[in-house]
This record gives sequence, structure tokens and C-alpha cells, in this order.
Amino acid sequence: MEQNLLTLLASIRPRDEEAYLAARARLDSLCKPPGSLGRLEDIAATLAGVTGQVFNQVPRRAVVIAAADNGVVEEGVASADPAFTLTQTQNFIRGVTGVAVLARRAGADLIVADVGINAPPCQPPILDYKVARGTGNFCKGPAMTREQALQALFAGVELARLAKSRGYDLIGAGEMGIGNTTTSAAVIAALTGRDPADVTGRGAGLSDEAYRRKVDVIRRGLSVNTPDPADPVDVVAKVGGFDIAALAGLYLGAAAERLPIVSDGFISTTAALVAVRLCPSVRDYIIPSHKSAEPGFAALSEAAGLAPMLDMGMRLGEGSGCPLAFFLCDCARDVIAHMATLEEAAVGDKYLDAIQNF
Amino acid sequence: MEQNLLTLLASIRPRDEEAYLAARARLDSLCKPPGSLGRLEDIAATLAGVTGQVFNQVPRRAVVIAAADNGVVEEGVASADPAFTLTQTQNFIRGVTGVAVLARRAGADLIVADVGINAPPCQPPILDYKVARGTGNFCKGPAMTREQALQALFAGVELARLAKSRGYDLIGAGEMGIGNTTTSAAVIAALTGRDPADVTGRGAGLSDEAYRRKVDVIRRGLSVNTPDPADPVDVVAKVGGFDIAALAGLYLGAAAERLPIVSDGFISTTAALVAVRLCPSVRDYIIPSHKSAEPGFAALSEAAGLAPMLDMGMRLGEGSGCPLAFFLCDCARDVIAHMATLEEAAVGDKYLDAIQNF
Repeated sequence: MEQNLLTLLASIRPRDEEAYLAARARLDSLCKPPGSLGRLEDIAATLAGVTGQVFNQVPRRAVVIAAADNGVVEEGVASADPAFTLTQTQNFIRGVTGVAVLARRAGADLIVADVGINAPPCQPPILDYKVARGTGNFCKGPAMTREQALQALFAGVELARLAKSRGYDLIGAGEMGIGNTTTSAAVIAALTGRDPADVTGRGAGLSDEAYRRKVDVIRRGLSVNTPDPADPVDVVAKVGGFDIAALAGLYLGAAAERLPIVSDGFISTTAALVAVRLCPSVRDYIIPSHKSAEPGFAALSEAAGLAPMLDMGMRLGEGSGCPLAFFLCDCARDVIAHMATLEEAAVGDKYLDAIQNF
Repeated sequence: MEQNLLTLLASIRPRDEEAYLAARARLDSLCKPPGSLGRLEDIAATLAGVTGQVFNQVPRRAVVIAAADNGVVEEGVASADPAFTLTQTQNFIRGVTGVAVLARRAGADLIVADVGINAPPCQPPILDYKVARGTGNFCKGPAMTREQALQALFAGVELARLAKSRGYDLIGAGEMGIGNTTTSAAVIAALTGRDPADVTGRGAGLSDEAYRRKVDVIRRGLSVNTPDPADPVDVVAKVGGFDIAALAGLYLGAAAERLPIVSDGFISTTAALVAVRLCPSVRDYIIPSHKSAEPGFAALSEAAGLAPMLDMGMRLGEGSGCPLAFFLCDCARDVIAHMATLEEAAVGDKYLDAIQNF
């Protein structure tokens, strides 16, 4: 699988610079001060860079959700019962969770995959990519073997290919896994060299005491396992989770398939950081969504080079920010396709000179 | 008209606290950590406070655009030709500007009103509420008389009533007027006591020299006219514009009609500040949208008590942020109406206790 990873990484091309620049030129010709539609212009240019076409539509979209359990929860780092990973994964399919409701509003489907829930395999339509029934407790040794990390990563690659083959033209990266703000903070600390206390938050709602325990657990995980920051797969294997590994693979697979992909909050963006460290060109394919309320998000977003567009105070995970960004992609598409150029917008010729200095 | 203003202000009630709290309780009962959907929860609660009902739909929405010219442009404070106010106002109706394209995506109409364009009255469907053909140059005296300020303000009140009578259940506050980042900065400086240099930006794109001139023009306007910060109408009359006055009236009218209203960027939020200073309860009716890229926006947003949800680097005006927020209102509505409660979400009873600590 090591060779497969190298082959995958080698297959990822940077954005189509010609289409990207043509999109920028078109945007600058529209009846507005140059750059005044900000991130909507960025999205339109990103989509052009991904598809190689200036004008893009992204009507078929899905949030891909990787669900897995984390052995580290036995240290008492999560406020919710670990059984909730399975319960909520089933609720995605029932359409009653946050991401399910928001996806419906944005005309998006959910693709839900079990990549390591601590339970017997789920029933369809939940896809079975289970690597194991949860990871090990990283305070006592690596969360998983390197082979398992690669297996989870390639499950994500497979999910991107599946989405492409099903005709989706835009996907989002979501997750479910009690304990995964702990694994994410550990991965961020390992990859960026930041102190665990700087990138650890209260997750779904920890007490002061539980928060201090969580920071300590991450410190122990890093000192027991000594992950190699130059080797993102090693980091994910030792202190990450199957969900993070699978989403890292989802980003890589999306880039390889030239499929634009939206990142969500803390865990989803941690996986994006892993993918970007494996292959910097992956960033050209990612459209960020919202600023997670987790305190480590600012450092994470800077390290990944993914500045959020939405500041909603959201900290639910599940991929719940992705449908909001899907709508912004629709808006970006409309701006580049339907706004008049400065020339077309001038009602009379006499204004044209003036407008060109607009 | 002074008496009419007092009558209007007295007619504005604070939000319906019972419905607001019932919405908060419903949101806390849903299958997510309490508060984890952040601003979406705030919007759902705001809508409940406005309408008095926990569940709301807002399918009929419009961006109301007040267009006017500003005499201060003769000081060279704007990078665009003043004739562009009229041109772009006509382009709204043609559906080819930024806000027009984005409104279409969000299923919103445009209601365009001439409240003071420096041109003969526009043709329908542009509504004629013209107070005068542009304001005076505030470096040489007040921009308008107090009577004119009140006339423009009541044009906005009228527009809110019109929207209500046409069946809209959500509106946005947009504007068009070359030179109106200058008038807005002057109004903000006057109302907040901030130094003009702290709240003045480069608008659509000024050179260093033009920027210094803009700051100086605002200083002169404030020193020539000495607006009374305790009298928002006086401030708008002396250093504001017809567009700002009309939008302030739009917010007041919306609150009086119990119609939720979305604020846009720099100019629109300046008008919101004027309205909130006239009647603090108006804030209960306003849903903010995006963080304008104008440097004075942070101070403005703090003074108005309206924290933005979108950080798009947008600085177009026109009400272009409103359609984005309309979509977030739809999302908020779906969250409160369609997510399962924790009880409903528990697949088996045995998880219920655990989930209640989720």
C-alpha cells in the first residue's frame, strides 16, 4: 500500500492555471470594483482551476461522512457516550441530524461510511469500510498500525472515486466519532509542533477537570508514541483515528479525480492538513467552509492554508458546515456566469469610461 | 414629522420573549450538544422573537435597495463616476448586478427605490421616493435639512410597510450611492466618537492620496456641521445621505411591522446603527449577514451590536450580503423544524441517558 500511496500522490496535478486565470480575468471584467465579491470570486476561480472550465455548475453534491470510534475515549476525554457514534451514524440515514437537515436544504445527498465503528458492520445504505472495531487507546501505544492507517486512507480514496462515478460534481468531508476532537488535537500538535494546550478545546462540552485531563492525555499520547511530523501517515496511525485517515484519503482522492471538495470544521480540516502535508497541490481542490468554535481551529486553518468563510460559532461536526458552503458555491457560479460585464452594464456609452475606473 | 417619528418609535415592541425562549428550549432539546449550531440557533430564536411563533418559514423575501447621490463626491472622495449611481440602479432592474444575481439564487426579489438620485425620476418598477437630486456637500454645510432627513427616513418606513403588504416575510437592507462609504464613515465617527481615520476605508479602491483626502473631508464635515451624537437624525441630516436615512427608516418600519430584516455591509449597517440609536429594541429584528471588508466595520458592528456571520471579504454593497443570509435563515428554520430531539434520535432506549450528557 505504500507504493499505492506514492502512485496516488504522483497522480495529483495542481489546478489548471489557464482556466484559473481566465476565470479571474472574467471576474475582473464584471460590473463591480475588482475583487469586491471577495471569497465568492475565490470559489469561482477555484472551481475553474479544478475542472479546467471557466463556467461551472455543481448541482449534484454530497457530504461524505466517515464514522469511527476512538480507543482513547477510555481515558474520559469525551462528554458523550461512545455508543453515540453508532446511534448518530444511523440517524444520518434517518435524515434527522444537523448535517442531514442542512444537506437537504442545499440539495445534497449523504454518503455515510463505517470506517471503524466499535460495533458489528452496519446495514446498507451505510457503506462498510470498517478497518477495525475502533482504534486502540493512544496513551498505551499507537492508535492503529501503519497498515490500518493506509487501509482507512484508501477507503477514503475509494469514497471519492465512488462519488465521482455516481456523477457528483462537488463533495464535502464530514465525520462522526466520539473522541475525535482529542485525536484531531493530537494530530495538529504533532504536525505543527504546537503545544497541545494551544490546540485543545472542550469538544461537545467538557468540565474544567475533564479539559485538563484531555490535554494531559494528548501529551501522553505524543510522548508514548513519538509520531514523526515529517510522516503524516505515521502521525495519523499513532495518535489519529480511522475517520481522520479516511477523510485525508477523501481529499487526496478528490484531487486525483479533479472533484472539488469542501472542508468542514475541526476534524475535517485536520484531515485536510494531513492531505496537504502529503501533497500540497491538494489545497487547490479544497473549498473551506466555516470557522469551527474549537479554539485550536485558527492554528489549524493557518497550517492547512484554508481560511474559513463562515463564522457561525458552529461546533457540531458531521460535515454540517459543508451544505452552507455548497450554497456559496452556487452563488459563486452565478456571479461569474450571470453578472454583466462593465461594458454590458453601461446603459449609455458615455458612462463607459467612467465605469472603467469604478 | 417629528411627532410621527416619536409615534413610530413608541410603536416598536421588543421581541416576543416567550416565543424566543420556547425556541431556545426546542433548540436545546435537539440531537446535538447544546448551542453547537451557533448562529443558526440564534437566527431561529430571532425569527421566533419577531413572529411570536417557534416555527417559522420565510419563503417570500426581498432585498430593498435605496439609491441616492451624495454631494460630497465633488471633493473627490469616490473612485467611481457619480453617474454610476443611476446606471447601476437601472442595472438592478435588468437583473445583472451582484445583488440581482445573488437574490435570484436565494429566491429573493428586489425592491428598488430612488430616494435621491441626481437625475430626473426613474421609470417603474423603480419606486419614486426621491427627496432631492442628491444631497449637499457636507464640507460646505449640512448634507440635507432635518425635514429632508425625516422625509427620507419615512420613505424607508413606507418601503417596509409596502414589503409587509406585498406578503414578504423577510427583507434585506441594500443601497446604491457613489460616495456613501464617506457619508457612512462620517455618521459612524459622529455617533461613536471614533476618530475618522479609524473608520474610513478605501471604498471601491482609492489611492493613498485620495484616501487621505477622504479622511480630511470627513474631519471637515464634522467640524463644519458639529452633529449632535445624541440626536441620530441630526447626524444623518448633517453628514449622512438619503440612502442611510431611508435604510434607517426601513429598519424602524420593519420592527414596527414585526418583519425580520437582514443588514448587509458597511452602509447598511451604518443605517442599522442609526435605527438602533433611535430605538434599541430594533436590534431584536435584525439578522446580520457579512463582515464588510471596510476597515471601520469592526467598530461599527460592535457599536450596533450586530456581529456578522459571513466573512467573505466582500465590499460591493448593493445589499449583496443579504441573499447569503436569507439562505442561512432557511437553514435555521430547517434545524428547528426538522432535526430530531435527543429522545427521538435515540435508536434504543438504553442510549437515552448517555445522550442526555451529549
